[in-house]
Amino acid sequence: MVRGRPREEGIDDAVREAVRALLAETGYQRCTIDAVAARAGVGKAAVYRRWRSKAELVFTAVIHAADLAPPEDTGSLRGDVAAVLGVIESSLDGPELRRALPSLLADVRADPVLEARFGEVFLGRERGYLVQMLDRAVERGELSRRPDPALVHAMLLGPVLTWLHLFPEPPPSGGLAASLASPVYAAVVALGA
Amino acid sequence: MVRGRPREEGIDDAVREAVRALLAETGYQRCTIDAVAARAGVGKAAVYRRWRSKAELVFTAVIHAADLAPPEDTGSLRGDVAAVLGVIESSLDGPELRRALPSLLADVRADPVLEARFGEVFLGRERGYLVQMLDRAVERGELSRRPDPALVHAMLLGPVLTWLHLFPEPPPSGGLAASLASPVYAAVVALGA
Repeated sequence: MVRGRPREEGIDDAVREAVRALLAETGYQRCTIDAVAARAGVGKAAVYRRWRSKAELVFTAVIHAADLAPPEDTGSLRGDVAAVLGVIESSLDGPELRRALPSLLADVRADPVLEARFGEVFLGRERGYLVQMLDRAVERGELSRRPDPALVHAMLLGPVLTWLHLFPEPPPSGGLAASLASPVYAAVVALGA
Repeated sequence: MVRGRPREEGIDDAVREAVRALLAETGYQRCTIDAVAARAGVGKAAVYRRWRSKAELVFTAVIHAADLAPPEDTGSLRGDVAAVLGVIESSLDGPELRRALPSLLADVRADPVLEARFGEVFLGRERGYLVQMLDRAVERGELSRRPDPALVHAMLLGPVLTWLHLFPEPPPSGGLAASLASPVYAAVVALGA
């Protein structure tokens, strides 16, 4: 088992690289599982074994893995909010993703099984980490109670997603996460007051 | 000119109704301008004269008109934020729009001319009204300076869009706008401090 691991990791990296190249060159529609396997030089079976759908393959290659790392504990809610906004901004930024995201979401929306799996694997994982962040803030006495994690999730993810994927202008100089850190922190404090 | 107006308004209403019915019955892909004209019982030329693209037709029929009404002056920034959130929630809510929005955005993203027009007509109009709301708050002494309107736009639109179009769960009881009014108000105050 140990011997096989580097090869397996090599496949993941090659596939991720192939997805990014195909999105940039041909767009989402033509970035099929078959095309990705050919470009990565791996068997189609190896790709199908790892990802249940094209949408999931693209999501994990360009946004974040299903086993997303937990956000760092910076020692304060203000710091934690800024750190999470930075992770969200770097996950959602980039011209390939900007072009691909609406089509990816259309695929997810068209398939209830895929939609349920996305809610569970990606949004559910993110939500779980926000609960940890909020519980730390309650323990530190920074919030008097844990606010609804879904509202906190919407306040953190929504402004970044909307600016990067809907607005025509580039982010403010200094970065979007830095510009949003104070207002989003104020919003989270208001939710947990 | 005056005599023709009711007939023109009748066409707008019939087309809007036809778009909603076709989105519900057949989905975005098959809700074509030809199908809309046939369903509304109006000439195709009348539809093409009013809307430059299918994406624009669908947007104005189910989200908001190009001549969006300005938000009400409630007498306070807190009230204005709550009112705008209510308008955004009612504009973006509904199962037909939830299914159609990713495909609509994919169409817009794929066409730079259409994307520029969307930025100007829809986002630009919304942005202009937020500037009015912020200027009123500065005049009242509720903000010490006018914050970046794009950041305020992202803080108001983002959480509603993300919850209604990405999250699997229904909005909180009492409505999303009511749950977001306090945190978003706190965020706007932090931006204008």
